Amino acid sequence: MTHSELPSADGVWEHLRIAPGALADDRAIDADAAIVVADGRIAWIGAGVALPGDFAGLPRFDGADALATPGLVDCHTHLVYGGQRANEFAMRLAGATYEEVAKAGGGIVSSVRATRDADEDTLYAQAARRLEQLLADGVCAIEIKSGYGLALEHERKQLRVARRLGETHGVTVRTTFLGAHALPPEYAGRSGDYIDLVCNEMLPALAAERLVDAVDVFCERIAFSLAETERVFQAAGALGLPVKLHAEQLSDMGGAALAARYGALSCDHIEHLSAEGIAAMREAGTVAVLLPGAYYTLRDTHLPPIEALRAAGVPMAVSTDHNPGTSPALSLLLMVNMACTLFRLTVPEALAGVTRHAARALGLQDTHGTLAVGRPADFVLWQLRESAELAYWFGQRPARTIVRQGRIASMSQP
Amino acid sequence: MTHSELPSADGVWEHLRIAPGALADDRAIDADAAIVVADGRIAWIGAGVALPGDFAGLPRFDGADALATPGLVDCHTHLVYGGQRANEFAMRLAGATYEEVAKAGGGIVSSVRATRDADEDTLYAQAARRLEQLLADGVCAIEIKSGYGLALEHERKQLRVARRLGETHGVTVRTTFLGAHALPPEYAGRSGDYIDLVCNEMLPALAAERLVDAVDVFCERIAFSLAETERVFQAAGALGLPVKLHAEQLSDMGGAALAARYGALSCDHIEHLSAEGIAAMREAGTVAVLLPGAYYTLRDTHLPPIEALRAAGVPMAVSTDHNPGTSPALSLLLMVNMACTLFRLTVPEALAGVTRHAARALGLQDTHGTLAVGRPADFVLWQLRESAELAYWFGQRPARTIVRQGRIASMSQP
Ligand SMILES: [Zn+2]
Ligand SMILES: [Zn+2]
Repeated sequence: MTHSELPSADGVWEHLRIAPGALADDRAIDADAAIVVADGRIAWIGAGVALPGDFAGLPRFDGADALATPGLVDCHTHLVYGGQRANEFAMRLAGATYEEVAKAGGGIVSSVRATRDADEDTLYAQAARRLEQLLADGVCAIEIKSGYGLALEHERKQLRVARRLGETHGVTVRTTFLGAHALPPEYAGRSGDYIDLVCNEMLPALAAERLVDAVDVFCERIAFSLAETERVFQAAGALGLPVKLHAEQLSDMGGAALAARYGALSCDHIEHLSAEGIAAMREAGTVAVLLPGAYYTLRDTHLPPIEALRAAGVPMAVSTDHNPGTSPALSLLLMVNMACTLFRLTVPEALAGVTRHAARALGLQDTHGTLAVGRPADFVLWQLRESAELAYWFGQRPARTIVRQGRIASMSQP
Repeated sequence: MTHSELPSADGVWEHLRIAPGALADDRAIDADAAIVVADGRIAWIGAGVALPGDFAGLPRFDGADALATPGLVDCHTHLVYGGQRANEFAMRLAGATYEEVAKAGGGIVSSVRATRDADEDTLYAQAARRLEQLLADGVCAIEIKSGYGLALEHERKQLRVARRLGETHGVTVRTTFLGAHALPPEYAGRSGDYIDLVCNEMLPALAAERLVDAVDVFCERIAFSLAETERVFQAAGALGLPVKLHAEQLSDMGGAALAARYGALSCDHIEHLSAEGIAAMREAGTVAVLLPGAYYTLRDTHLPPIEALRAAGVPMAVSTDHNPGTSPALSLLLMVNMACTLFRLTVPEALAGVTRHAARALGLQDTHGTLAVGRPADFVLWQLRESAELAYWFGQRPARTIVRQGRIASMSQP
């Protein structure tokens, strides 16, 4: 069933509890709250007893005392790619060397090859199954990056699939062009030439096709330099596109400060972020995107500077970083638990990280991440007593009802 | 809907692929396999082309090339308890001291209090929701321990709820009496007296009510001594009940060797297991139960001696250890990923850990954990290409069809 065939959520959703931090205006409604949906948008939110008479005739949906939050926002994913790398995962555990894995066709190169080899429908079908897993957690908006094509036609294919997923699944998709993800094999030793291609051909063409909502770079010793990153940012700026950055994951490259100078929406990973980087991000209003799934999968031990980010008041988002190599994660709620357990975020921080601050990391803070009148009806009713339970249990799928873009995407018995 | 109202799975399940290690006789069937279910049991398994004519008239279920495995077995859980401890989880992250948490009613004492305070229906309703999360992963057999009642009537209540869950949900439940889980507050300083009560009153009474399939002890400096453990084992032996042990989690107490001497089904946790313990377990055929969810939640860094267990050929099982304090895990598949990622089990080891070896840890090796003719029809059809994907993706819920005790417990479109 495509999204447009799902039942409309228009009506009065009553007998709800609104989770702390869920409302844009920070009200708390602990009992018997109601959300009115009209024409697919939130028309009213408040205590049920205060429901205006004009809504009295609308259909009623009994929330059965469920906890309501905004739809979740997964603000950093590489969801569209060909193939998967379960075999590589198994080989590594069985003791294969990196060389053996590479010989058997492993590593990012294998994902680039599989992405190039796949046609658009195949890429779509594979990504749709992964997307459906994420949506089952209550994700209502998601960022999807390119970066496994590394050539115009293949990057285009990835981004077109991302747009199509948004349409068929009724989920808000923000596309990010990450042509500067890795150096394609045919450009080995010529990274300057590849950045020329990214800036002068790929990005302008894809932007003209309206396939690009933001531009990202993997700035790292094993990827692209600070100077190359800046060239991509300049190209993005010339097209009026916002930027973000894979920054300081393996070392302090100074990428965050550069990104902040370009007004970046977010700096992501940032395990090795410096005090200067934090200060620059605070100034620029750049969001810090934390990716505990990759930290977990890589058995990393170098934590991002959470305490310093908190002290500086830099907003922290939390995301799956879904990708086939370092984070084959299919649950954003699990990332909430990992952000608490591994990164020691508080529960309110982790929940803001997948709602309010995640929306900001995508420039969607006016429409997503909190509930308010006039916004698209994207919300989740959870079969839980307290919002802390969203972080406490792990491996759960507790969404009882999911309203996405004004339609009832999922509803089970209380 | 109760289990008995679910549709029968009797018929020919065709167009399947049987996962490596799934069949009791170790055959591999890579394509177009079929499983015949008759009267709720497996009547035949093999290549579809070899299907005997007597089954030709049965209803057909199209497996659509799904991967088939036995139902999963979660062999170590504390699933039945009152309340939950999300608030304590949140308080700790917000910086509360242990004292403050205790004052606010945290710690195991709070679960004991909530379990004692709850009536049987309340305990049942709370545990049923957790059980349903585990079942959604394809769990078909589960161990449930007592140990939060710590008094005859309350331990009875927990075990009765465990039995009732098995009946209503059509899942094989093995109950374990864990009266020696912690010293109840009213016995502070009198652990000998409490062990008397466990051995002379609680265990005989509950065994007489047929509520006890096995007996477990938490043998640790902070719980019960080796000598106390042995007294419980003797009491179990006198009643003809098998034993298992929470052993060497925090220190090497010599519990595993003791348990092996009593022919224990399993030793569980075993982070600090010694070479002597391993040798004794190998001799006795005792299963090593690995609990990565607790290791993860506690941010433990002391790994169980996997390499030595592997070298000794001790069978390794993997379980959620579901409990409200140290492992609020609600997905056994996530434990498969954690066993690989955190404990470096190979994929076949981790999968055997939640099927074949988990069944052995419960004494269910003749009926569960592998597929064979004559066994109850407990199997899962997965929307995956390779069995390594069961371990590789994390946070997923990829079961497409679950057949439990001969009924179709869940089936979605391919
Ligand atoms: Zn990334
Ligand atoms: Zn336990």
